Amino acid sequence: MLFRQLFDKESSSYTYLIADTKTKEAVLLDPVLEQLNRYLALLDDLKLKLRYCLETHLHADHITATGKLREHTGCHGILPEKAEIPCADQYIKNEEILHIGSIPIKAIATPGHTDSHMAYLVNGTHLLTGDALFIRGCGRTDFQNGDAGTLYNSVTQQLFSLPDETLVYPGHDYRGNTVSTIGEERKFNPRFAYKNRHEFIELMNNLNLPNPKKMMEALPANKQCGNLDAAA
Amino acid sequence: MLFRQLFDKESSSYTYLIADTKTKEAVLLDPVLEQLNRYLALLDDLKLKLRYCLETHLHADHITATGKLREHTGCHGILPEKAEIPCADQYIKNEEILHIGSIPIKAIATPGHTDSHMAYLVNGTHLLTGDALFIRGCGRTDFQNGDAGTLYNSVTQQLFSLPDETLVYPGHDYRGNTVSTIGEERKFNPRFAYKNRHEFIELMNNLNLPNPKKMMEALPANKQCGNLDAAA
Repeated sequence: MLFRQLFDKESSSYTYLIADTKTKEAVLLDPVLEQLNRYLALLDDLKLKLRYCLETHLHADHITATGKLREHTGCHGILPEKAEIPCADQYIKNEEILHIGSIPIKAIATPGHTDSHMAYLVNGTHLLTGDALFIRGCGRTDFQNGDAGTLYNSVTQQLFSLPDETLVYPGHDYRGNTVSTIGEERKFNPRFAYKNRHEFIELMNNLNLPNPKKMMEALPANKQCGNLDAAA
Repeated sequence: MLFRQLFDKESSSYTYLIADTKTKEAVLLDPVLEQLNRYLALLDDLKLKLRYCLETHLHADHITATGKLREHTGCHGILPEKAEIPCADQYIKNEEILHIGSIPIKAIATPGHTDSHMAYLVNGTHLLTGDALFIRGCGRTDFQNGDAGTLYNSVTQQLFSLPDETLVYPGHDYRGNTVSTIGEERKFNPRFAYKNRHEFIELMNNLNLPNPKKMMEALPANKQCGNLDAAA
């Protein structure tokens, strides 16, 4: 398995490239529009065939590169079933397993940041947590049908039930961290480890965060798979 | 083996934490002063005993955290033999192997960015390239006894002779990349793949880069292992 973590500075987002090194089939998870040329160059260098662009959720902080990657590579855009975005080529549902060559990618419904959010367990070892779980943090729950109590259940029941050594690769990091483990987050994530569900809801409902800078642009664009013309 | 890549945004530096998960012994490579509390918290969370702080070279763009980490943890500061910095507790020479529990870390003399620069091969698989080799780039060669022809030899003869699948973990990245491989850099690094030694020297000697912002502060401080009082 080839596994690459690619950072976009402007949105502090991580995109993941996963490929079967034998069959050369690849998937990009949560690609960012501004990084399109970087993805295309890397796919070209590594002689990979992009089969899918997969999203953890409909992003409010950046525009997806899925539409443009589809134009360039013929890949399929896959979205969580409950996101109900008509531009997708395929939908993925809870516990469904996508195969990239011999690599299984299992969808794990983890609503709370948005109501249709999915995490993905790659190869049984690498958990792509999107905006459900960050390293020592988690995604906000104050828009897009987010719900703090639901996120608490998703993280503590779905993600923290995975083995301790499962690697945690988040959708964002604002402090320069790249990877953690489930064991570590269960013990030390300040949003979950020292708080019960009630305290977590209280905390999340009082964060008073400003809206993401790109939200008004990103949400309509992402409903069109990042196709800006169609969103205009 | 525990392997963590930790980014410092201000200097775009990567620090690496490597530990033997059985013996709990750890080393930090190229730690950054401003991230001291983050390192201490992570070492504490993971119950690691910091044995060493290891440097690839005397940095001009950030102040090392080695002095402060030594105060807090009693670790030894290790510098390349030829750096001749009296504050070090130990020096490491070309091809010397340091052991962190059962993990071998082999020093590979790679002068050119500075005249005493070392890369380190961890566990035979993870190559920490410092400022000799970046992902699709390399360190500058215009100060601290840097020399472009020497860097070309170090990279093409010492690093590119390692197996294709060796993972490349650089000392800096300015584009959000985290890892590459020797096979990939040998083929696609624009500084080396399409250039002979003469062309590389020509290119490097005409980059006309401004000095690093922190250079006047960092060099004297790093000669004291990051002890600002002693450097004042």
